[in-house]
Amino acid sequence: MNKNAFDIQKSSVTFPFGFKASGIVAGIKKSGKDLALVTSDVPAQCAAVFTTSTLPAACVLFSKKIIKNKKAQALIINSGNANACTGDQGYKDTQEMATVTAGCLGMSEDMVLVSSTGVIGVPLPMETVRSGIVKACSAIKDQGGIEAAEAIMTTDTYAKYFAVEFELDGKKARIGSMAKGSGMINPNMATMICILTTDVDIDADMLQSALNKVIPRTLNALTIDGDMSTNDAVFLLANGQCGNKQITSKDENFNKFTDALESICLEITKALAADGEGATKFVTVTINQANTQQEALKAAKEIANSMLVKTAIFGHDPNWGRVVAALGKSQAKIDPNAFKITFAGIPVADNGQAIKYDKEKMFAALKNKEIEINVSLGSGSAEATVYTCDLTYDYVKINAEYTT
Amino acid sequence: MNKNAFDIQKSSVTFPFGFKASGIVAGIKKSGKDLALVTSDVPAQCAAVFTTSTLPAACVLFSKKIIKNKKAQALIINSGNANACTGDQGYKDTQEMATVTAGCLGMSEDMVLVSSTGVIGVPLPMETVRSGIVKACSAIKDQGGIEAAEAIMTTDTYAKYFAVEFELDGKKARIGSMAKGSGMINPNMATMICILTTDVDIDADMLQSALNKVIPRTLNALTIDGDMSTNDAVFLLANGQCGNKQITSKDENFNKFTDALESICLEITKALAADGEGATKFVTVTINQANTQQEALKAAKEIANSMLVKTAIFGHDPNWGRVVAALGKSQAKIDPNAFKITFAGIPVADNGQAIKYDKEKMFAALKNKEIEINVSLGSGSAEATVYTCDLTYDYVKINAEYTT
Repeated sequence: MNKNAFDIQKSSVTFPFGFKASGIVAGIKKSGKDLALVTSDVPAQCAAVFTTSTLPAACVLFSKKIIKNKKAQALIINSGNANACTGDQGYKDTQEMATVTAGCLGMSEDMVLVSSTGVIGVPLPMETVRSGIVKACSAIKDQGGIEAAEAIMTTDTYAKYFAVEFELDGKKARIGSMAKGSGMINPNMATMICILTTDVDIDADMLQSALNKVIPRTLNALTIDGDMSTNDAVFLLANGQCGNKQITSKDENFNKFTDALESICLEITKALAADGEGATKFVTVTINQANTQQEALKAAKEIANSMLVKTAIFGHDPNWGRVVAALGKSQAKIDPNAFKITFAGIPVADNGQAIKYDKEKMFAALKNKEIEINVSLGSGSAEATVYTCDLTYDYVKINAEYTT
Repeated sequence: MNKNAFDIQKSSVTFPFGFKASGIVAGIKKSGKDLALVTSDVPAQCAAVFTTSTLPAACVLFSKKIIKNKKAQALIINSGNANACTGDQGYKDTQEMATVTAGCLGMSEDMVLVSSTGVIGVPLPMETVRSGIVKACSAIKDQGGIEAAEAIMTTDTYAKYFAVEFELDGKKARIGSMAKGSGMINPNMATMICILTTDVDIDADMLQSALNKVIPRTLNALTIDGDMSTNDAVFLLANGQCGNKQITSKDENFNKFTDALESICLEITKALAADGEGATKFVTVTINQANTQQEALKAAKEIANSMLVKTAIFGHDPNWGRVVAALGKSQAKIDPNAFKITFAGIPVADNGQAIKYDKEKMFAALKNKEIEINVSLGSGSAEATVYTCDLTYDYVKINAEYTT
């Protein structure tokens, strides 16, 4: 797959044909936009991936039911309140968000997906939410994607949205996206919400297959701090407005769509990692020569989640001893006399031992914003890549001061 | 078991009869004591628990062999260099540490255990180590335990040593200890070294049984940052000088000894947690009403390792949403309508939902140095307790500035 074939554009969920959106100030958060709405002009095929938390929020339970119907036409998302651990009332509140949205938009209730992000354990301020939904419904427009992206932010420092365009059956096909998440991001997504829209004509099962293929290599390969939330979700809506022949099998067009989807999800992944709470570095950890793919992934995640490795990166220190500690903990098979480690492209260990390197060159390399750690385990041929960021004073500051 | 029956004393490995020790400046570290020696007047029964890292240091591989003989008479420990990832030469260097120690003390080489802690991937400065060992051997004395405890420190802010005395067969029985470790401490011990000495007469198999029983509830229930090292080890030497009838089965005396051992190991655990790098709080996480003991432990560790929970504690914030996120990630069975959470003894969630609490009282309670988080899962009757500390600016500072 040549990811370079897809030119990433700075556009959002309204980039594909037939999608509208809005992002408004409802008053759920103390300030700023906090309610986003995305709609399709026609009912869309839909797919989703949700948090594996055993304590999912009400909106996750609700949206899982909607996704089973494989069709949706609108998605309402609030920030500032996760509506998690809010009991039966929380579920009723989620249902009401769908009901009010459906009423305003004149569509069936079971066509509305709901997502929430923010503080856990606080009931939704439903008066505010209700009037906000009415406002959001009246504000939807063709170019509303960026405002919607702004409305789903919590501790993000900037709104994240990307789009791609490619050809399918001689037609212009498009995928748009918006995402939020900065701390509490972890393997299996955590407090991350990502909305993908496309005008490609593809049936819901193929849509889900494409998403399932792409997520493990992109959004699930992202870890900020090893924490996982109650609310994470990725939604993918396909409204078929591009005019291609509907994709109903894993044919060439399916592969083309999946590749485009992967390139956009990878871009989102990188943006989320780079905007990790307090992060100064975007870190890519790649494991090669692992015994199994599972071990490669485990080893990569142990390194990416190691507080000691993350603080070392912040301190511009190629502390490969901490990488070794994480590798040993991962229980992945490692040849102690063969493993190799490079920091920022500069080898620091070979044949399981330290090697000399130019310290000034290394220090300069570690000043870059993007850092790669590569480890060859010498045990096989499997590989995996995960994305993370460094651990900084500001991470502690943001999370010690963020209040319940 | 009544742990209060054991009065913890501020004494070290030379508290039991027939043990000597020394702690000297060899010059391995830039400054301070860096070489410790503990000897028994007579060959002692021995037991140990080692890191489960798949990349153990040379000293771990070496000492595992010695422990198989079930007898040892001396233990030489250096700080400042872990002698890990140092290849065949590293193993030879460990062997030479034992050889030189045995030669100086006039005992057989296979009676000497070796332990190292410090930077990974740097060969031991053997000239310095050799002359240091000679110096340490000539410095051993009856009251050398505290100096030895000082010599094994790395980023510890103070030396850790504890002792207990109790009666066995009408005789005074004693256990002494010293330990080091502050960052990189994790379930399964990580960069932690703990030396336990006792004058109780107990055979090596019973000694190992006692250690195996105590460690999961104490040192393996400790986690600072989820990281694990290549060098962790707990050694337990019993020289039989107390004069009790040798313990050879799990009888009443075995239980008494094990209880005393547990009380001392718990004290060490608490001291290590309280001295976690940059820590301002000692945190106890207890899970009740879990479906299985394994799930209770997994849930407790997820909470204790959560960077978000740890920063919240630092910020005096009873952020139980982050506890919920960690619980959900743990995959432990939880009744979403029944779980309860208390912070510092004050309930914050009940029946799976927020409850009101006095914010001023909470803020005052969270200013204490010792904080308890208790969670009842409502799924069964199993329970587990783990110990940790908060995550602070200083953790980042210490670990960003510690250089390879």
